[in-house]
Amino acid sequence: MIVSETVHRQIESASWIRRMFEEGIRLKAERGAEKIFDFTLGNPTEDPPEKVQAALRKLVETNAPGSHSYMPNAGFPAVRRTLAESLKRDTGLPFTENHILMTVGCAGAMNTVFKAMLNPGEEVIVPMPFFPDYQFYIANFSGKMVPVETTEEFDLDVAAIESKITPRTRAIILNSPNNPSGVIYSEKVLRELDLVLERANHPIIVISDEPYKSFVYEGAACPETSSIISNCVIATSWSKTWSIPGERIGYLAISPRMPEADALYQACTFTNRILGFINAPAIWQLATAEAPDALPDLALYSEKRDLLCDGLARADLRGTWVSVCRTG
Amino acid sequence: MIVSETVHRQIESASWIRRMFEEGIRLKAERGAEKIFDFTLGNPTEDPPEKVQAALRKLVETNAPGSHSYMPNAGFPAVRRTLAESLKRDTGLPFTENHILMTVGCAGAMNTVFKAMLNPGEEVIVPMPFFPDYQFYIANFSGKMVPVETTEEFDLDVAAIESKITPRTRAIILNSPNNPSGVIYSEKVLRELDLVLERANHPIIVISDEPYKSFVYEGAACPETSSIISNCVIATSWSKTWSIPGERIGYLAISPRMPEADALYQACTFTNRILGFINAPAIWQLATAEAPDALPDLALYSEKRDLLCDGLARADLRGTWVSVCRTG
Repeated sequence: MIVSETVHRQIESASWIRRMFEEGIRLKAERGAEKIFDFTLGNPTEDPPEKVQAALRKLVETNAPGSHSYMPNAGFPAVRRTLAESLKRDTGLPFTENHILMTVGCAGAMNTVFKAMLNPGEEVIVPMPFFPDYQFYIANFSGKMVPVETTEEFDLDVAAIESKITPRTRAIILNSPNNPSGVIYSEKVLRELDLVLERANHPIIVISDEPYKSFVYEGAACPETSSIISNCVIATSWSKTWSIPGERIGYLAISPRMPEADALYQACTFTNRILGFINAPAIWQLATAEAPDALPDLALYSEKRDLLCDGLARADLRGTWVSVCRTG
Repeated sequence: MIVSETVHRQIESASWIRRMFEEGIRLKAERGAEKIFDFTLGNPTEDPPEKVQAALRKLVETNAPGSHSYMPNAGFPAVRRTLAESLKRDTGLPFTENHILMTVGCAGAMNTVFKAMLNPGEEVIVPMPFFPDYQFYIANFSGKMVPVETTEEFDLDVAAIESKITPRTRAIILNSPNNPSGVIYSEKVLRELDLVLERANHPIIVISDEPYKSFVYEGAACPETSSIISNCVIATSWSKTWSIPGERIGYLAISPRMPEADALYQACTFTNRILGFINAPAIWQLATAEAPDALPDLALYSEKRDLLCDGLARADLRGTWVSVCRTG
């Protein structure tokens, strides 16, 4: 067999999401794009914000020397400084350029940090329901995914998480606002989790997967996980906020509160290189520093959300949806 | 220890190339860029070709719907079709879009194909001298790198390669024109290697790492490895030809002559996703199809090459350089 045994097995059991996405493309070509509603991938239909397009036009017109060249594997230092300043304002933590590593999107960020951390057989706890490809990101480095139940409302069940901690637990993935449930973890539940982690006999790192942080509605706010959890690594991307998922730009931010933050940062810089990312795409790194405050037009998303939620409520589908999420 | 044991060991023994590059940046800031000559990374000092800059300006100004969105993990089908046509002309082989997978540079391509192929302990033969990070790309998937001697002129020693073949040999990396030696493998030596591979008791795949294919001087030509070797996967990038190594765009091309080409292609599409690349940066995929014939200005490179070669010859450094390459 030309394909490795593990990959062969994984493909057989792989998520249907991508196959549904490709079937959607085929159906659109066959029946017309206006007749097919594609809810498979998180592929924004909005244009990138005008500020982002303007930043891109400026970068391409200027074509500054070195703007397409290799830079340190962690990314352009000036870009990392700008993002560290912004994160410092949001979290109150003393982030510097030496905590920020530019990555090939959030999936690149997660693979980079798992490669840096995991020894074979070590465990990563993941609250259900979760983005299915987490299982591969952990398995890539011979880690073991440990799914954990959440409450009826999909909130974190801290006691359930505590019961899953073993001497091999190295990390917990938190994704808030959550894909797929939409739940935002409250400051209260995050503080409870932090206390549990402090009681553990060894360091357990929270990987905070935050690409949906800007997508909050009805005046809700999403607490900064890294302001609350001491041992925190942020993994995020501009895929959703800027409607550019095909461009692959994100970052890892290692909390300055973490003991050994520098060792982990150096290791991630190295694994970002040896996994073949080398560095995040140069032009998009520069764009993030050109337009650090560009945000999505939430009104457009809010309108669609209300339409869908109202429809589901009218169809009395809430119970069914919950059970689909639970078993999916 | 926060860092995995393997990564900790690898960092300790890692190539000095990157550290020298970062030291060069520091020295340039301290003493002036005109006083420091940086020969560490393959970081072109030329601007991207004008055709490439024009393609990029056009893409950014047009901002076509979906141009920054997710596409199939293998890349935009229309882009893959254009590149397949071009490869068909160059090699005479019936490449189609379903043999071409757009990747995050050549390092991304190599990790993607090794992840798809290698079972733990399987071997990859690598002629010396070689790009040092190959060792990590193979080790990432628990493969074993098997270095093999070349001739005094750094040409392939086919008998030496044959002597290294075991039942666990899965692949051979060929890099022609070679980094660092500059050697181009002749059609004759490639044909000899193909005969050896045909005699093996199991399929052995040549990974042809081709980013320097356009950089040939004095009327030399670089034979198409995939036209000669039956079981061939091309891994390449535009980093060097377009002076855009920071942008991370390349591709894998699986030879249509290979049995199980489709199974390997499907597996690579999947591993490109689960390793966290997801897809190659959208804007650069589109640029490769906008400017498929854009080439570097070889006169600029030729001038520098002659200057360096003449200087080395005058200093009678050839022998020393060979011994550095042999032991480095």
